[in-house]
Amino acid sequence: MLKPGATIGILGGGQLGRMVASAAARLGFDAHIYTDEEDSPASRVAARTTVASFDDEAALANFAAVVDVVTTEFENVPAHSAEALVASGALVRPGANALAIAQDRVLEKRFLNEAGVATTPYAAIESLGDLEAALQGVTPPAILKTRRMGYDGKGQARLASTDDATPAWEAIGAQPAILEAMVPFEREISVIAARGADGSFAAFDPPDNTHESGILRVSRAPSTLPPHILEDAIAATRRVADALDYVGVLTVEFFVLRDGRLLANEMAPRVHNSGHWTEAACVTSQFEQHVRAIAGWPLGPTDRFARAEMHNLIGADMDDVPALIADPDVRLTLYGKRETRDGRKMGHFTRLVR
Amino acid sequence: MLKPGATIGILGGGQLGRMVASAAARLGFDAHIYTDEEDSPASRVAARTTVASFDDEAALANFAAVVDVVTTEFENVPAHSAEALVASGALVRPGANALAIAQDRVLEKRFLNEAGVATTPYAAIESLGDLEAALQGVTPPAILKTRRMGYDGKGQARLASTDDATPAWEAIGAQPAILEAMVPFEREISVIAARGADGSFAAFDPPDNTHESGILRVSRAPSTLPPHILEDAIAATRRVADALDYVGVLTVEFFVLRDGRLLANEMAPRVHNSGHWTEAACVTSQFEQHVRAIAGWPLGPTDRFARAEMHNLIGADMDDVPALIADPDVRLTLYGKRETRDGRKMGHFTRLVR
Repeated sequence: MLKPGATIGILGGGQLGRMVASAAARLGFDAHIYTDEEDSPASRVAARTTVASFDDEAALANFAAVVDVVTTEFENVPAHSAEALVASGALVRPGANALAIAQDRVLEKRFLNEAGVATTPYAAIESLGDLEAALQGVTPPAILKTRRMGYDGKGQARLASTDDATPAWEAIGAQPAILEAMVPFEREISVIAARGADGSFAAFDPPDNTHESGILRVSRAPSTLPPHILEDAIAATRRVADALDYVGVLTVEFFVLRDGRLLANEMAPRVHNSGHWTEAACVTSQFEQHVRAIAGWPLGPTDRFARAEMHNLIGADMDDVPALIADPDVRLTLYGKRETRDGRKMGHFTRLVR
Repeated sequence: MLKPGATIGILGGGQLGRMVASAAARLGFDAHIYTDEEDSPASRVAARTTVASFDDEAALANFAAVVDVVTTEFENVPAHSAEALVASGALVRPGANALAIAQDRVLEKRFLNEAGVATTPYAAIESLGDLEAALQGVTPPAILKTRRMGYDGKGQARLASTDDATPAWEAIGAQPAILEAMVPFEREISVIAARGADGSFAAFDPPDNTHESGILRVSRAPSTLPPHILEDAIAATRRVADALDYVGVLTVEFFVLRDGRLLANEMAPRVHNSGHWTEAACVTSQFEQHVRAIAGWPLGPTDRFARAEMHNLIGADMDDVPALIADPDVRLTLYGKRETRDGRKMGHFTRLVR
């Protein structure tokens, strides 16, 4: 169990790292950010920052030597960086196995299925020939995604028919990919849960999520789905966490089909955009929960004391800030990004419904 | 109205500055701490820190040049420092007038009385002779306090009888002082309120406060006093804020006598220990409220969604942390102080009563 005053190392300098760093500080920890970006959002709320490449093994070793635990705010930390940290004696939570699986969509689907969690039909694609063959089994409409490094709808192409194979393959840059069937789902939900170092487990109430252009727009908690479906989703998430011997907050996104069947869409080995409302509506936020877990502390309560609706502020949504700060039911969080760009997540707000 | 991305300058590096800096970051501001202490609690959650003496006029001028507004986390900022900042063109909120009054117990009592707010009987003391003479009017039991630089019960001596004049005068270091009658109060409450740049005003529900050895131990919100007394206390606080043309969070502590009469004890031109529960029990915390006010933003709602009990963690109370983090009704905040010392405020926790 880390003592107050210990240092939480965070790989990545974005908004998730920023919010984890603030939560760590509230519990008396120092945050130390490792990022390749100068003046990152997270570094501006952290005690210390190392600006270095994720390939810089000397910098990673120095980082490992001065922090008490290392966590990540994004799943695309190079596997060799996480391994270099472990080799330097760092306690990495969640572990390198969770990162390796989450950063490869094929490994992820395979792992989920092996953990007894259903997913959409898929096929691993290494070439245009693979894609053409796979389209016989995974029939369009389908979506082709790069195996690695995709997020927020980037690195994806839709296929309406088998004729789209070549343009889709070119659109994603002709690289290792996964072909996924587009299932006619009724709802998207996510489970934001934590597993403690002692194997304890706690989930927040799963929210209903709405995406636009591949980017999360709104999460509404709690989901209005029947409780037994939500319990199934939480149980599936627990199987995933246990199978990984996971420590920290883990998120699994699910499609819910008309018949109530759940298909896991993807997992994120970290706090998640669809859990930001927990900061406004729960005693323990997902950020504090993650810090508690990786520090070896007991997990906090996940009770929700209000209904909550979290909206992302993307690009020009920043123009809404003057109206939002005058709205008494809104709790606003901005990420301190210097430049507003189309499609860029600039902040979010949570509206409490009491 | 400051835009997100602007810089909030904070004079002082303690826990209040730390919590204001974190609230500023959540609203998208950068915090810049000015402190004479290396590795201060506030600097570890702030984007930038200047470590310099409050007498360093060049450092103050540089600070004024790079921040968009300056605020203070303690009232004992030297008046000449605040004036140097104003002379350098800084927007200082609250203004130097509020600091000057709050840091001199005699000016403070006089100002409160002039604003129509009753206080305990008092006398200004410059010498042992003054003290002996004053004890004829302000009859013991009484308390002798240094005019300046006292906090948490420091720089105070009690007088049980007129015989205690010489030892009390020596105990406080034979310096300019105030003699205050010790009134037999039933209750201590505080009003934590904010006045916006547009003159708007909002108060949190006043808590009941319990002190030990001159240090706040517990604040319970809301106070169980009849509403009309609390409304009177809030109205008195508003008169104080208006008289100062105040911008920011202002706290006034009151004694409540058996007959319901209110006597202002002291004012603090800043967020206050007795308002820490707002972080756990209100949509807008006192820290966010202060940032909103000094940024020229609209004040946030002060609604309380739970009863709350805030306990300070002082010195060896830190031994309670393992039990506290396992308690599901507790929200813990630690200040990141490197060393635990007797009488030192190390953190606090809020227990929500729902």
